[in-house]
Amino acid sequence: MPSSDPLLIALGGAIRTLRFERGHISQERLGLDSGVHRNYIGGIERGERKPTVGTIAKLALSLGLAPSKLLARAEREAERHGTSWPGTEPDAR
Amino acid sequence: MPSSDPLLIALGGAIRTLRFERGHISQERLGLDSGVHRNYIGGIERGERKPTVGTIAKLALSLGLAPSKLLARAEREAERHGTSWPGTEPDAR
Repeated sequence: MPSSDPLLIALGGAIRTLRFERGHISQERLGLDSGVHRNYIGGIERGERKPTVGTIAKLALSLGLAPSKLLARAEREAERHGTSWPGTEPDAR
Repeated sequence: MPSSDPLLIALGGAIRTLRFERGHISQERLGLDSGVHRNYIGGIERGERKPTVGTIAKLALSLGLAPSKLLARAEREAERHGTSWPGTEPDAR
């Protein structure tokens, strides 16, 4: 069941892009590294799954970036497709 | 059941802090604004719940910041308690 949530779709795209950027890591390899099942990763990449913060953290850490940075990539991707978020400018804190 | 996940505990603290910063918004008020049940918000704040990215996005948007910024606050809080994340330095992209 495809998700209509633009953030989830963008998140899936961001993870797929990172796999390619990190040397075309396979879903299976990322699954072994992160402890998230490869089939579930496939579902996340297609925007069909609603991962928890913990799952996002596992995937982000395996891909070598902070969980917030993974979400920030997804937000930027979603923005390019017309979804705007408040506060995406640099945090003043 | 308290969570042992430092990111979830820090996330809960970040949400609670933001409620106070935003004028001492109650859990009930935040629940009405975000569509997340106030009891569930309480559980998140105590680190007992494992919210999905969608729930985090709802809460973040109601609190006036991007989901990634909420997670970044949680990461900084977790770091202060000894959990380190890769890539928390500013993203070069």
